[in-house]
Amino acid sequence: MPESLTLSIDAMGGDHGPSVTVAGAALAARQYGTEVRFLLHGDEKLIEAELAKHAVLRPLCEVRHTDKFIAMDEKPAQAMRRGKGSSLWNAAESVKTGEAGACVSAGNTGALMAIAMLVLRMAPGIHRPAIVAGWPTAKGITAVLDVGANVESDAEQLVEFAIMGAAFHHAVYKSARPSVGILNVGSEDQKGHDEVRGAHALLRATTLDLDYYGFVEGTDIAKGTVDVIVTDGFTGNIALKTAEGLARFFANELRAAFTANPLSMLGALLSAGSLGAMRKKLDPGGANGGPLLGLNGIVVKSHGGADARSYASAIRVAVDLARSDFTAEIDRNIKRLTAVTSETAPPAAPDDKVE
Amino acid sequence: MPESLTLSIDAMGGDHGPSVTVAGAALAARQYGTEVRFLLHGDEKLIEAELAKHAVLRPLCEVRHTDKFIAMDEKPAQAMRRGKGSSLWNAAESVKTGEAGACVSAGNTGALMAIAMLVLRMAPGIHRPAIVAGWPTAKGITAVLDVGANVESDAEQLVEFAIMGAAFHHAVYKSARPSVGILNVGSEDQKGHDEVRGAHALLRATTLDLDYYGFVEGTDIAKGTVDVIVTDGFTGNIALKTAEGLARFFANELRAAFTANPLSMLGALLSAGSLGAMRKKLDPGGANGGPLLGLNGIVVKSHGGADARSYASAIRVAVDLARSDFTAEIDRNIKRLTAVTSETAPPAAPDDKVE
Repeated sequence: MPESLTLSIDAMGGDHGPSVTVAGAALAARQYGTEVRFLLHGDEKLIEAELAKHAVLRPLCEVRHTDKFIAMDEKPAQAMRRGKGSSLWNAAESVKTGEAGACVSAGNTGALMAIAMLVLRMAPGIHRPAIVAGWPTAKGITAVLDVGANVESDAEQLVEFAIMGAAFHHAVYKSARPSVGILNVGSEDQKGHDEVRGAHALLRATTLDLDYYGFVEGTDIAKGTVDVIVTDGFTGNIALKTAEGLARFFANELRAAFTANPLSMLGALLSAGSLGAMRKKLDPGGANGGPLLGLNGIVVKSHGGADARSYASAIRVAVDLARSDFTAEIDRNIKRLTAVTSETAPPAAPDDKVE
Repeated sequence: MPESLTLSIDAMGGDHGPSVTVAGAALAARQYGTEVRFLLHGDEKLIEAELAKHAVLRPLCEVRHTDKFIAMDEKPAQAMRRGKGSSLWNAAESVKTGEAGACVSAGNTGALMAIAMLVLRMAPGIHRPAIVAGWPTAKGITAVLDVGANVESDAEQLVEFAIMGAAFHHAVYKSARPSVGILNVGSEDQKGHDEVRGAHALLRATTLDLDYYGFVEGTDIAKGTVDVIVTDGFTGNIALKTAEGLARFFANELRAAFTANPLSMLGALLSAGSLGAMRKKLDPGGANGGPLLGLNGIVVKSHGGADARSYASAIRVAVDLARSDFTAEIDRNIKRLTAVTSETAPPAAPDDKVE
């Protein structure tokens, strides 16, 4: 039986505020019972009005009032300057003080990242945070990171992402020894730019608690070739959004194909069950809960537009991470990495980048 | 009535050699009649054996024998050293001498690029070639470039891609004044790294024969927000292959959903027509014929695994480009760009890259 865990919730974050965040917590409470308690940060009146609808949840919650909150379009720099005392800030602060084991926010990504870094600071040995996406594949879920915390990453940062991604996959998807690939334009050693080739050489040279597979290509994501795919935040963000766009396009085309004529409409009716299951499985944006990895504390970002069910799934990710040995595993691997990088830089691959 | 055009064909390139390249030419010949003639480079006996099957094609062809060809796994550096006199080399050489208006090859991308650059050289004012993909979207076809000729691109090269992509879209998809976007992690001016922000500032500052839209995100590709999407070859290659992988995953899941139970199988039967049309429309790798833009001459790359129908579509792209004012348009815009960049570098956007 796991120990009781407290989560801090930015109840005001997201497009819908407490109506979604409190209802999401209520759904999670059905699953966890008294094992998980909640600190709800935000406007007391609004939160209490929502709590009144969920009798089971009420005794599991403590409300921390603030009338300050971060707008969904607030710039990171402004959020950092003016954010102190906001529901987002206070939610992160509860993790720092140890009152909560993890925090969840559906607030805007830039502000969440800026405030979380300011309040919690980077974990020892980690240079930059990364946002990780759980990507549905033919074989299960692949963790893809970074999908937007950074616009550029050097070789060592990519290796740190590999370590954090593996610990995340192990903690949340229970893989014994996650396989890790670096996203590239080909699988041969000489392919790609200096950053990916440097990370490739470093991962080859270091013994870590992960199974380094080598380079993977874009087609390998949906195949589920590896458990963890490492990339810089620019490429990862574009790959994820390209896939989300295609998934939406696909859903629209499918709808159009099924309403093209009476025969196909009948066909759609007959196939509705299997198709619905498929659709849910396909959207890379479907699995909610993108942790910000690399901080001194667990912070999970929910989609801003999440509904209660989707918000509950972000809560579940936070619970899984808080209950795992996630942080210790990262720490152990970072120490091994530092031992290698401080000794000697690995030799660069030959300079033949032409495909 | 267009003038007669001669295409040079690397008849040995691709996984299937003359059995596909000659059959593809035969399909194209049905459409173009005597308006398009072919120079077929490769093993005379093998080519003649295939030509014997296509009576209509035979009088439109001249066979140029060589028993040298580039293997599909040959490294670019090796292909450059040893490629002289090969079917691929000779096909490019025919464009250089002016015997052919364009060439088509299904040979390996790296070797084709290396040899084409060596034989044809870069067009005036263009620093690097780009491979362009015709990407099916909700609104038509968006030209995405670069999808793999380069691993890194600076701001000026991205602007050159914009110019080449717009000329390509105009020539092949007949858009009057193509809209162009730069792929980024957000749409605001301060988003992204120096290269995309520099290109953004340059395109804002220059008056070109194109409609500069601004930054677009990954989700905008499938939406068809713009006619041309510009990105570096690393990101473009990964976005394209991610989408190809996802499209294949969709197709498999769809098949699985339709065979899940007898009812859904009946459903599939009833909807077959509309679904087949949809499937063909969705695969970003489905439209064959990726030109190598930026050279002194038109070179179109076909998929190595193309069948005759798909090879014919690569031939059609080559014909459209050869018949258009594509080259003159690029030249005109490059001159305008050079006028701006030689005057003064545009001011960089403010240094606030955090999302």
